[in-house]
Amino acid sequence: MSASALKPSKLFHFTGLSSMYQRISRRFASKLVYSEYGDPIKVIHKEKEDVLEPETKQVLIKMLAAPVNPADINTIQGKYPSKPPLPAVPGNEGVGVIEKVGPEVEGLCEGDHVVPLTNNLGTWRTHLVLPTNNILKVPKNLGLVEAATLTVNPCTAYRMLRDFIPLKPGDTVIQNGANSACGQNVIQICRSWGVRTVNVVRSRPDIEKLKSYLMDLGATHVLTEEEVRSTDIFKAGKVDKPKLALNCVGGKSALEIMRYLQNGCPIITYGGMSREPVTVPTSALIFKDIKVRGFWMTRWSKEKSDSVERIEMFEELISMMTNNDLRGPVYEMIKFDNYTEALMNTMTVKGMIGKKFILDFS
Amino acid sequence: MSASALKPSKLFHFTGLSSMYQRISRRFASKLVYSEYGDPIKVIHKEKEDVLEPETKQVLIKMLAAPVNPADINTIQGKYPSKPPLPAVPGNEGVGVIEKVGPEVEGLCEGDHVVPLTNNLGTWRTHLVLPTNNILKVPKNLGLVEAATLTVNPCTAYRMLRDFIPLKPGDTVIQNGANSACGQNVIQICRSWGVRTVNVVRSRPDIEKLKSYLMDLGATHVLTEEEVRSTDIFKAGKVDKPKLALNCVGGKSALEIMRYLQNGCPIITYGGMSREPVTVPTSALIFKDIKVRGFWMTRWSKEKSDSVERIEMFEELISMMTNNDLRGPVYEMIKFDNYTEALMNTMTVKGMIGKKFILDFS
Repeated sequence: MSASALKPSKLFHFTGLSSMYQRISRRFASKLVYSEYGDPIKVIHKEKEDVLEPETKQVLIKMLAAPVNPADINTIQGKYPSKPPLPAVPGNEGVGVIEKVGPEVEGLCEGDHVVPLTNNLGTWRTHLVLPTNNILKVPKNLGLVEAATLTVNPCTAYRMLRDFIPLKPGDTVIQNGANSACGQNVIQICRSWGVRTVNVVRSRPDIEKLKSYLMDLGATHVLTEEEVRSTDIFKAGKVDKPKLALNCVGGKSALEIMRYLQNGCPIITYGGMSREPVTVPTSALIFKDIKVRGFWMTRWSKEKSDSVERIEMFEELISMMTNNDLRGPVYEMIKFDNYTEALMNTMTVKGMIGKKFILDFS
Repeated sequence: MSASALKPSKLFHFTGLSSMYQRISRRFASKLVYSEYGDPIKVIHKEKEDVLEPETKQVLIKMLAAPVNPADINTIQGKYPSKPPLPAVPGNEGVGVIEKVGPEVEGLCEGDHVVPLTNNLGTWRTHLVLPTNNILKVPKNLGLVEAATLTVNPCTAYRMLRDFIPLKPGDTVIQNGANSACGQNVIQICRSWGVRTVNVVRSRPDIEKLKSYLMDLGATHVLTEEEVRSTDIFKAGKVDKPKLALNCVGGKSALEIMRYLQNGCPIITYGGMSREPVTVPTSALIFKDIKVRGFWMTRWSKEKSDSVERIEMFEELISMMTNNDLRGPVYEMIKFDNYTEALMNTMTVKGMIGKKFILDFS
């Protein structure tokens, strides 16, 4: 619990409220809010709010860190299919510390680190009161960055690798946009499972630096979009042909990774950075039995909110992270007060490896 | 057994062979053969052959009728992924009558009507000797045309309706190329199951005649490619949104039928008449969870050659046919001697409802 969270609210002094109860319960809390969809820089503002007391089976969480994801930007712009009712607090994931437990709470204590699990509840705020069935307790030796970014990218990578075709050690996965936040998770989870990865990235001036970075994460091969077209790694038997293709680009790039797939295998689309659709040759569908699917973590989480698979997934991912088999993203912490900087950077800066900007509430 | 099949072969007289055995076993049989891939008119020739005696667990079949399918043409041209070793006898389906049963044959008698089940065995021949596990006995009240065209189009339609999503009475299927041989089977099988069909066809001068023909088969709605773009049948609640889309066209047509699908539902490609690929919007894959698949009857039949599903499928289809719930295609019988006419017509004539040219061995 940080000291600042206990300071009496300035608002409290101005309005002159004075009962003992309010002296204790009203504290310095704030949140980001938007009341219309639009340019995040324009529609989002910060406002103070009362910190509520946790009720039965609820806990009061003081947020520690919450990332700005591209999907958050799209949601605020009104371009995302998942539209929260307005006014809304943005933010879809993060990590906090329990500041107070309500009555009848079991298995959670003050000081526990927790990750909110419900979609669209709004994590860009200093304090949150949540029912205990909507949060995941995480070990304190889990890094704050890893905890704050647990529920979107690592889970997306994990589910795409688990849910579409069984993979065993020695099998190959091919992916484009391999330097994306999700792509980096794919590389590391596969390495941990003994699965080989062929990673496709756009060429760029610092391509060798990017290749080294991804090889260091555990990539088996890293190829540019140009190189993958004429590569002999499959013919030469350096790796088996892929059993799974993961696509976050679309267009020609999707076609290139699709054509190496073994017969009967799936290509999963989870993004469309080129803004071009996925084009599938008729013969690939009929004669190669290529299965073209999409994946959306938000839907999976809703459908499987109380499932054993979800618990197993978090356990395995957290175990990989605390064993240093799975690193959090390259990131930059930005003080909550400077949230516009985090928004601007997420919208404009295209780093080599997709740096994550994380709001820091300390 | 037709009288002509018992005539001594002319070849026999020319070569002067005279043993009693040969007098009985050599008979007037002939087959089409090609020894190189290419233009069917040029590479196919007819040749005489000996009729072999059926051995243990074999039967001698005199073919009655065998259709010329577009896939046969592509196979002869070398453009089909399923390449028989050369020289090969073309033809993939047909119906015959058992002329003689070999030793240890059970459950089959002379005079039984049978349909060969193995792929690429070559049905464009007057006689065939086959092991009994490679043939299906069909009832004599099954029409010759229905029997001769049983294993490709009705089975393709049936499997696509059975294997990708459960359909119940009142559900909707949407398909393009609805006037194709397979499309007509889709309409009739759906009608028999109480499933509604929205059928898309290209506009043409005799469009009202085509619409009437398909409505008469049991279509719920028939729309041209232009009409389907702006139809209100789904908005107005005339039919539910489709749970299944069947595509044999590709390109824009595939996109049009795909966009009406309910979330989480599949579009199955089994042809590509427009020669354009299937283009899938990224959002349809991620947010609508549209599943893009292909279907190839040849693969299914190989994988499921001895399956219960295969037997059940034939039983249900034959039952529909003998009950007049499922008609064979519009067809024209062409004498075996005039096979080039059947090839030419299949390659060039584009009838309103895809007339099938069937070789007649009588």
